Amino acid sequence: MTRVAIVGASGYTGVELARILCNHPNIELTAVTSRQYAGMPLAEVFPNLRSKVSLVCENLTTSEICDRADVVFAAVPHKTAMDLVPQLLGAGKKVIDLSADFRLRDVAVYEDWYQAHSSAEFLAEAVYGLPELYRDAIGGARLVANPGCYPTSIILGLAPLLKANAIDVHTIIADSKSGTSGAGRGAAVGTLFCEVTDGFRPYKVGGTHRHIPEIEQELSVLAGEALQISFTPHLLPISRGILSTVYATLRPGFDAAALQALYHSHYDNEQFVRVLPSGSLPATQYVRGSNFCDIAFSVDSRTGRIVITSAIDNIVKGAAGQAVQNMNIVCGFPEATGLEGAPFFP
Amino acid sequence: MTRVAIVGASGYTGVELARILCNHPNIELTAVTSRQYAGMPLAEVFPNLRSKVSLVCENLTTSEICDRADVVFAAVPHKTAMDLVPQLLGAGKKVIDLSADFRLRDVAVYEDWYQAHSSAEFLAEAVYGLPELYRDAIGGARLVANPGCYPTSIILGLAPLLKANAIDVHTIIADSKSGTSGAGRGAAVGTLFCEVTDGFRPYKVGGTHRHIPEIEQELSVLAGEALQISFTPHLLPISRGILSTVYATLRPGFDAAALQALYHSHYDNEQFVRVLPSGSLPATQYVRGSNFCDIAFSVDSRTGRIVITSAIDNIVKGAAGQAVQNMNIVCGFPEATGLEGAPFFP
Amino acid sequence: MTRVAIVGASGYTGVELARILCNHPNIELTAVTSRQYAGMPLAEVFPNLRSKVSLVCENLTTSEICDRADVVFAAVPHKTAMDLVPQLLGAGKKVIDLSADFRLRDVAVYEDWYQAHSSAEFLAEAVYGLPELYRDAIGGARLVANPGCYPTSIILGLAPLLKANAIDVHTIIADSKSGTSGAGRGAAVGTLFCEVTDGFRPYKVGGTHRHIPEIEQELSVLAGEALQISFTPHLLPISRGILSTVYATLRPGFDAAALQALYHSHYDNEQFVRVLPSGSLPATQYVRGSNFCDIAFSVDSRTGRIVITSAIDNIVKGAAGQAVQNMNIVCGFPEATGLEGAPFFP
Amino acid sequence: MTRVAIVGASGYTGVELARILCNHPNIELTAVTSRQYAGMPLAEVFPNLRSKVSLVCENLTTSEICDRADVVFAAVPHKTAMDLVPQLLGAGKKVIDLSADFRLRDVAVYEDWYQAHSSAEFLAEAVYGLPELYRDAIGGARLVANPGCYPTSIILGLAPLLKANAIDVHTIIADSKSGTSGAGRGAAVGTLFCEVTDGFRPYKVGGTHRHIPEIEQELSVLAGEALQISFTPHLLPISRGILSTVYATLRPGFDAAALQALYHSHYDNEQFVRVLPSGSLPATQYVRGSNFCDIAFSVDSRTGRIVITSAIDNIVKGAAGQAVQNMNIVCGFPEATGLEGAPFFP
Repeated sequence: MTRVAIVGASGYTGVELARILCNHPNIELTAVTSRQYAGMPLAEVFPNLRSKVSLVCENLTTSEICDRADVVFAAVPHKTAMDLVPQLLGAGKKVIDLSADFRLRDVAVYEDWYQAHSSAEFLAEAVYGLPELYRDAIGGARLVANPGCYPTSIILGLAPLLKANAIDVHTIIADSKSGTSGAGRGAAVGTLFCEVTDGFRPYKVGGTHRHIPEIEQELSVLAGEALQISFTPHLLPISRGILSTVYATLRPGFDAAALQALYHSHYDNEQFVRVLPSGSLPATQYVRGSNFCDIAFSVDSRTGRIVITSAIDNIVKGAAGQAVQNMNIVCGFPEATGLEGAPFFP
Repeated sequence: MTRVAIVGASGYTGVELARILCNHPNIELTAVTSRQYAGMPLAEVFPNLRSKVSLVCENLTTSEICDRADVVFAAVPHKTAMDLVPQLLGAGKKVIDLSADFRLRDVAVYEDWYQAHSSAEFLAEAVYGLPELYRDAIGGARLVANPGCYPTSIILGLAPLLKANAIDVHTIIADSKSGTSGAGRGAAVGTLFCEVTDGFRPYKVGGTHRHIPEIEQELSVLAGEALQISFTPHLLPISRGILSTVYATLRPGFDAAALQALYHSHYDNEQFVRVLPSGSLPATQYVRGSNFCDIAFSVDSRTGRIVITSAIDNIVKGAAGQAVQNMNIVCGFPEATGLEGAPFFP
Repeated sequence: MTRVAIVGASGYTGVELARILCNHPNIELTAVTSRQYAGMPLAEVFPNLRSKVSLVCENLTTSEICDRADVVFAAVPHKTAMDLVPQLLGAGKKVIDLSADFRLRDVAVYEDWYQAHSSAEFLAEAVYGLPELYRDAIGGARLVANPGCYPTSIILGLAPLLKANAIDVHTIIADSKSGTSGAGRGAAVGTLFCEVTDGFRPYKVGGTHRHIPEIEQELSVLAGEALQISFTPHLLPISRGILSTVYATLRPGFDAAALQALYHSHYDNEQFVRVLPSGSLPATQYVRGSNFCDIAFSVDSRTGRIVITSAIDNIVKGAAGQAVQNMNIVCGFPEATGLEGAPFFP
Repeated sequence: MTRVAIVGASGYTGVELARILCNHPNIELTAVTSRQYAGMPLAEVFPNLRSKVSLVCENLTTSEICDRADVVFAAVPHKTAMDLVPQLLGAGKKVIDLSADFRLRDVAVYEDWYQAHSSAEFLAEAVYGLPELYRDAIGGARLVANPGCYPTSIILGLAPLLKANAIDVHTIIADSKSGTSGAGRGAAVGTLFCEVTDGFRPYKVGGTHRHIPEIEQELSVLAGEALQISFTPHLLPISRGILSTVYATLRPGFDAAALQALYHSHYDNEQFVRVLPSGSLPATQYVRGSNFCDIAFSVDSRTGRIVITSAIDNIVKGAAGQAVQNMNIVCGFPEATGLEGAPFFP
């Protein structure tokens, strides 16, 4: 049994990691850390876990974590992660880092959008944990930088088009909508029930969201040239789910049938990407609680644009589920282990 | 007292018209028609109206409607409206038509997107009922074509930019999200609570929604040249509200301060348009139940695009409220009569 | 114009008071206080109020409040109110207090459920602000203790039965469900969107909620004898609304027709109580945004119990709306002024 | 591999059965029937099932069903079930019937609350499928009558008390609240999103809901004497979940510690019942998507009543999950097979 720790277990990513891992047949969850809830059973912090997880939250030192675990999920905020992760690696651990600290390869870009980076020497080694793009590298990695939720939905939606040079890369606009769990579990007026329910709002409009450099990095690699996108996030009155609507001008020579074939050839061997049949559209409620990414596209012949719509559960494929998928690859387990559950609807 | 009838009172637009009109000091609501609920008090169909509206739904002939009312709100589906409206006009009535039948000036465009038009001779006379653009014409009209909900949010958001020639008109993309009341009150699996709640989905992707020709007609007038847009509607798990996020490439020479001044000069005399201060963003929950349209814009200097966000309550400013605003103008009442209520939040 | 101040305007009761008062024809809102938001326009704290309320939140002394206002709504927490209110009264102001501090006539009961009372000498003078029971006394009061939200729904539902001696007073069980706005606007994990949505939970089960002594006080007066009730509150995933389901054993001699007559005779002159016809049931969505209390009852002949169901909007009839109703009575305005709006649905 | 069919797969119970069964290691799902959707893949009716269930909905004869399956889940409406089930039994099949047709042992009671029963001869044989009460009998049954959702939550909550003679059986009042999936997937105005969201309502008040005889039957067995209850169902604006709040007068001699011990001794060997520690309360969001029933109680010493609160997911433990639990017992599989998933939160 591989021993696994969750560092920073008291957020929504933490509880979802615990939910998935508590039934994983190849691992044993051996430690869950939380400064705030130290001493409290995780199943009291998150009563859904009663009788499924018996671990108590602890405020462990890094060395104690290393004594307990072979693989560590770092579910701590960025900046905290850049200090923690090198120590874990130094102790010979495999790390799945869910923060943004090791996603960007260019330290200057990181420092432009975040703050000074104290562990930039690990950026080259970290593998961007999108298995559909980097499966082989993940398999040999000791540090996996688990992608952001918005980037996962957008990159998977655009990858086949960019690889095939099917769109004008300077016309990409991503309009994304996320459930409120993405805002975290911190007490804040802005995410109170009464502020969010029965409402809808954009935020960080105008090219200011920190997921932009991450998206652009990966899209540029896929396109083979540097590109910039417009990206607008919005807050949905739902717990889980991201739906991204992505616009781009189609290059000549790609009709709907060819594009459908392109998507299928790209994803038909992927267990967690479902290319929808023509005429179907994704919806967050059809991926709820699962690791699936559902993708469809529509060609707007009036304007010459293609519209890609993709849906994920932001705390599964957008965070905890993808992290477990990465762990499975790193550890050599079948990639879908623990992630076989169908989405629940309604 | 002006006598007013609502034809087709049993939908969500009907109940909202009744809610607004029951406290309107200049009119008397004299008839509410519904084939389905004929004989039932409207306040039993919609129990929120108990003790506020005592009328019974009736299945009236057009001539009976004409006997009862001076002004008629036609809240029937398109195609039904094109048969009804000419009869009402023929009897000398003023008509606010909430269907799509008289919104498009070009019958060929109408017939391309809808079906054959049996009353095309009235298209030239009908005034598009967006008071912020056509106030004077509405004042003298006998037939007002009340705008669609999505068009209202998009046209008001773009009007100042188009008039000032501030954007490249071939780059407009409108990504809109609507509450479920927009889908009407017909019994259908797709709008059941369990299908919609805790979810989010696009529909009619790829340039197929019937509001497109209406939006393009008005934007083209504003721009002074024919233009086409990309438009994607989505279904929000809320009752009321539309938020449109609109993208366009900014022409050189327009900085944020100039654009803010432009919006203010355009709308500061408008009672129902609130241009938000820089740094603020609209949200559907802040216009809920009111006739306001809240508008903000952000300049994305990285990509050279402007992002306009606008929010309305789809059954008030997007339907019933705007219809009453039009009635007020047609009848010479102060324009905000009956529409003074502040949005309710939470 | 009567000058009115809201002390403690930054909570959900405060914004609702401002929403109602901004269209009230007989008063002028002259001050809104908030320590937390001092210096910020109330319409920035609550953007729904943009263009409707121009006041800036201030951290005023009591004497400054007294300089500005003739009537004061005290929307501060209990304990804070007991210090503030006597000073306002001493300056000759009329006070509508929305806290619990002056609702209980017996100081010992207050101190048993809350804490020591520093202004107990005002308890005898304060009038319990349920107009349907105490209209005359309210008319002459300088201190009105605005009722709690749960008590309003329960007391109005039971009053006719208790006055008519129709139920066994020792069998009353009130099972109440409240929208989340009742929990206030403080940042707290328990009321975050993700904790509340798509869920339902009881709280303070077993006779521990502080509204119990208030309910029992008023029911005992109505019954003419001391009584105790079982009361269980629950948290609904909605913003606004309380629905109480109240059970009691019916005394012999009261059939459904007699009871219906009893309710009608009791409430038919009340503008804000709607006794539903037999066969209809209340729902929170039919009173949303209004000052109505909808009441129905059902006789369960199998068990000999009567089941009363009553619905209010907890921040209107359960707080701000009832407070304005009380102000209208105190000031001699028509009782429904500012409260004429029909509930909005959907 | 045991071959399994779902008859009536196009409702919410059907999709949930398919979701659970598609990962069940001991069975093969071989047929899903639906008249309405015959010819359509089940994964098009319910897109969450894409790539998990490849079966096409068929309109099969009973004999075709019998050719395909060893065990049949009958998820058809009552009355339909009473015709179907005897034929399946006659062909030697094991049947888990999710309708009400075989739950009541006394045909007169059935006919009083439903309609004439055409297969009353099977009532004596059918086993009421609440494993916590009838595990042994279920193990030997060929016909399991899967309990109703409300009854499951109420009976499990009261069973320890009734067996221990801890409450006055004539004082039981059950106030239950259910998610909207309980109302089924039929197109109806009353369950449209806009009618349900942001609202709450009771229905079938006054002792008229058809789950009453089922609840009373089982509670009477547990109590050892005939009893009647008051039961009021309510509709929650959530998809999944039932929470029942049950009141009864406590007999002398039972303090909280003794009652806590009683519940634990009753349920500590049950995998799907979680007795909460003193001070904790159930919530539907903590059992979401799982087969758990969470139970707590509070003693109200002021009134001498005990208040039991219990929560289930109405389409798992209240329908499909319990049905699979029963199948597991009938087939000799480990009882929790396919039902190990932790509840998902948020």
